[in-house]
Amino acid sequence: MTDLRQQMEFLLEMDRAKQIGRQTYLSDGSRKENDAEHSWHMALMVFLLADYANEPIDVLKTMKMILLHDVIEIDAGDTYAYDEEGNQTKRARECAAADRIFGLLPKGQGQECRMLWEEFEAMETPEAKFANMLDKIQPLLLNDASGGRSWREHGIKKSQVLARNARVHEGSEELWNYARELIEKNVENGNLQDA
Amino acid sequence: MTDLRQQMEFLLEMDRAKQIGRQTYLSDGSRKENDAEHSWHMALMVFLLADYANEPIDVLKTMKMILLHDVIEIDAGDTYAYDEEGNQTKRARECAAADRIFGLLPKGQGQECRMLWEEFEAMETPEAKFANMLDKIQPLLLNDASGGRSWREHGIKKSQVLARNARVHEGSEELWNYARELIEKNVENGNLQDA
Repeated sequence: MTDLRQQMEFLLEMDRAKQIGRQTYLSDGSRKENDAEHSWHMALMVFLLADYANEPIDVLKTMKMILLHDVIEIDAGDTYAYDEEGNQTKRARECAAADRIFGLLPKGQGQECRMLWEEFEAMETPEAKFANMLDKIQPLLLNDASGGRSWREHGIKKSQVLARNARVHEGSEELWNYARELIEKNVENGNLQDA
Repeated sequence: MTDLRQQMEFLLEMDRAKQIGRQTYLSDGSRKENDAEHSWHMALMVFLLADYANEPIDVLKTMKMILLHDVIEIDAGDTYAYDEEGNQTKRARECAAADRIFGLLPKGQGQECRMLWEEFEAMETPEAKFANMLDKIQPLLLNDASGGRSWREHGIKKSQVLARNARVHEGSEELWNYARELIEKNVENGNLQDA
């Protein structure tokens, strides 16, 4: 198979990310969003918010990382942030998914994509810290806009949100301050349980 | 309002692009896709297919252009490619939309976004030619995968597809060759009318 056929096969496989549902509702609460929409939204965020990074970031690399960060869920599925059981098997399921999915690409590109995904997961570089921060900030923004609908449905506590967002400040202190305001506002209006 | 509040307001407004339906079905034909999904898919394409550009392109700039190319449809709506009447008023509706939507951002970023959108529309630079090419190739790939469902529903002719794709080769001769094969295949299997 030529490189182009392999790339097109991979790109067609990517279409399935549009059917992987997340727990976050759109801002108007009409339905939950999917991985493709979430990733597009995050990619716009890195474009517009990159200056708030604690350390300078390579915007293109961060954008590539974001575009790909959830595609392994095509095989591994989305694991809800507060699903403790699911999160115990998450890593093994996702590695097997990465082997198959990135293996569809020509070797060099497959390796580049795999490395970007691993870098995102390891959360050590400035780019990975910023991308992981956006992965938390984007649903916070939507949860706040939808009146905390997903939090209410799952009876989420402030302490759970703070634990989940404990490393957000590593990507951007300024955006973490913004996020904390949103969290406090949603405790005050009862969308998050004050516990 | 601080820059960050303006940026967050813009990013929240962007959420609405997830509700702008297109005429293209997902590859499994289960439903039509929306602007956010389409743009994410195209952004992945520029990442993986940039080497096929006729002229070297700035990948980051092309990616930003792609992420933004349809957001004016939040106000102006999606105009189906083969809707002649709608296409006559398209430009005026889209300019008014660009004024309002990009006007939500801090001035410098608003101008950058507006210029990227205008550059995409003018289709003169290597980046704009490549992005416009992907804007045609992405639905072709999905139309082929879904058994030409959207073409069949609208009774689309091969000549209409060729006219609509007349400038695809300016972005990439190699990808235009690939697209032509897909088009011919769909004429042979009856998904496109041979006229």
